[in-house]
Amino acid sequence: MINTAKLAKVYESMKKENVQYLVLSESSAVNYLTGRKINPGERMMVFLLNAEEEKAEFILSKLFPQEGEVGCPVTYFDDVDDYVGIVAKKIEEGTTVGVDKEWPAKFLLRLMELLPDNKFMNGSYILDHIRMIKDEKEQELMIAASRYNDLGMEKLVPLVNKGLSEVGLRDELLKIYLELGTDGFSFEPICCYGANAADPHHENDDATGKAGDSVILDIGCKKDGYCADMTRTVFLGEVSEEQRKVYEIVKEANLRAIATVRPGVRFCDVDAAARDYITEQGYGEKFVHRTGHSIGQDVHEFGDVSSANTDVLKPGMIFSIEPGIYLAGDFGVRIEDLVLVTEDGCKVLNDYTKELQVIK
Amino acid sequence: MINTAKLAKVYESMKKENVQYLVLSESSAVNYLTGRKINPGERMMVFLLNAEEEKAEFILSKLFPQEGEVGCPVTYFDDVDDYVGIVAKKIEEGTTVGVDKEWPAKFLLRLMELLPDNKFMNGSYILDHIRMIKDEKEQELMIAASRYNDLGMEKLVPLVNKGLSEVGLRDELLKIYLELGTDGFSFEPICCYGANAADPHHENDDATGKAGDSVILDIGCKKDGYCADMTRTVFLGEVSEEQRKVYEIVKEANLRAIATVRPGVRFCDVDAAARDYITEQGYGEKFVHRTGHSIGQDVHEFGDVSSANTDVLKPGMIFSIEPGIYLAGDFGVRIEDLVLVTEDGCKVLNDYTKELQVIK
Repeated sequence: MINTAKLAKVYESMKKENVQYLVLSESSAVNYLTGRKINPGERMMVFLLNAEEEKAEFILSKLFPQEGEVGCPVTYFDDVDDYVGIVAKKIEEGTTVGVDKEWPAKFLLRLMELLPDNKFMNGSYILDHIRMIKDEKEQELMIAASRYNDLGMEKLVPLVNKGLSEVGLRDELLKIYLELGTDGFSFEPICCYGANAADPHHENDDATGKAGDSVILDIGCKKDGYCADMTRTVFLGEVSEEQRKVYEIVKEANLRAIATVRPGVRFCDVDAAARDYITEQGYGEKFVHRTGHSIGQDVHEFGDVSSANTDVLKPGMIFSIEPGIYLAGDFGVRIEDLVLVTEDGCKVLNDYTKELQVIK
Repeated sequence: MINTAKLAKVYESMKKENVQYLVLSESSAVNYLTGRKINPGERMMVFLLNAEEEKAEFILSKLFPQEGEVGCPVTYFDDVDDYVGIVAKKIEEGTTVGVDKEWPAKFLLRLMELLPDNKFMNGSYILDHIRMIKDEKEQELMIAASRYNDLGMEKLVPLVNKGLSEVGLRDELLKIYLELGTDGFSFEPICCYGANAADPHHENDDATGKAGDSVILDIGCKKDGYCADMTRTVFLGEVSEEQRKVYEIVKEANLRAIATVRPGVRFCDVDAAARDYITEQGYGEKFVHRTGHSIGQDVHEFGDVSSANTDVLKPGMIFSIEPGIYLAGDFGVRIEDLVLVTEDGCKVLNDYTKELQVIK
């Protein structure tokens, strides 16, 4: 059913920002406001909001007929219809149209062609600022998803010295998640050994581990529509002095960032807490990514934990804290938890140990 | 390595169409031209082509450093950089810019803001017309992927009367694919019982099967970057006269469409062969979708088998033929194969039987 409370907030924000129409298309955005999970693949799905009339409606492929009371009008189209034209006809000339940040160019360019006198802008921030604050039910689902993820990590870590390739570890993890009763991956996990772990977005390959490798396990399951995401780094057989040193720096950076999280602090302050410490320790240039990202129904939601984001933390926000140090060609370490901003601090959603582990 | 032969074809077509720049972003499009599999998630990836200078270059997040000889310049950016601005600076004012059909609005709107005097259009058709023709190596990979898919179907069908839910069937299929040595799903499969099978894009749920149900299994694996996709419909325990009749109509429609496939025939003719027969038999309104879609590195590629597509078939094209009849609230039947257009006809890539099966 349509969440009228959330929708009212969106209309209010649209009016404040002078955005008369909002073209929403992301599955998670639509689900957030309507409670309906629709994944139309490459076909167009538009949930169109009109702020002035406070009217919402669907424009949907007839391959996705909606059962039960939708709570708003639905226009169904056929594959051979001019479906973007249907959207265009519902939009008043000369107005400002906010567009979903993920709406593909094939639809947007056609809509702009049909509405040459309208102003188009990225309108997702309106909804995203509302989505950032998870309500109680959403918080519970996020906590549960991370609980499953802790269990997944517990089962995965003992497999890292069993001679499996990175792809093999990934496949085992998928089985683990399915056996735990989750819906599978929230994202394609990173399970990588040694020098591959020094590439923060390495894609799993046929590499296997050897003594002295760091093993980065960046994993997440999805449960009831909400995403988990955590990273642990363990060592195979032995750990060098440098590896131990780097591990403890990353762990301390993770803890320092977590310690800053409370309402009123800015995202960039959280980033700085991790980054400044790593820089002080001489590894600033080896921490090549932002400290974290917001998360919910999507694994990466609006709200980076980065030096560029001066937005202020509010209770109900959930994001990752995942500093890392990457020594190219050698090894890498990343430690990631999800945190929920509470009234006076934060709750860490992951329980799995952050103590240095050598898997023999 | 960059495929210079394919790239030359793209430049040639760009010049013919007066598109000076092409902003490519889809992983499969980039992989097609560069041989590099890069999945930057929500981060921007642009493979920018300049037709006049016959120059290609990457603009990439530094989280995705490219190893080895790329064969073209690469500009790396940081999360906090104005990365769309980097693209804008490489594009000459006043020119026509072709944009990847899937490029998200968040990037496109920003680029249009930075380049107010350029003309933007959906430019994917230029590459897509080239991608439609699979070369020999690609044909081999597509044939291999479908061979694995036949094996997957063979293992899945005997599970439909084991009391598993739809989600349970899906999970078993994933294990089957992994055990066969494929990379997993090429798309989220549809495994549905009874009335759910009458919804052509039903999402798997907790439903289980009962005697007399039709069971639609629309499944595909991915292997070495190429996608399989096939559908079979079987019956649980027993089959009614109407079900048998509908099944044979759909099978005949599938065979008639396949029989039309040869160079020079139009996509819409293939659609008509299936659709006209189903209509003659009185079920035209129950065949609610196009007859098929092109397929390759993406499960749905450019080139619909629909009444609206008058493009002509050429050797090397690969697409699905998947007529269906859906009797809402009761049952549905769909039978799908992939076909490869040859010099004088077509090769059907799926061997799994299309004879009516009652699983007891």
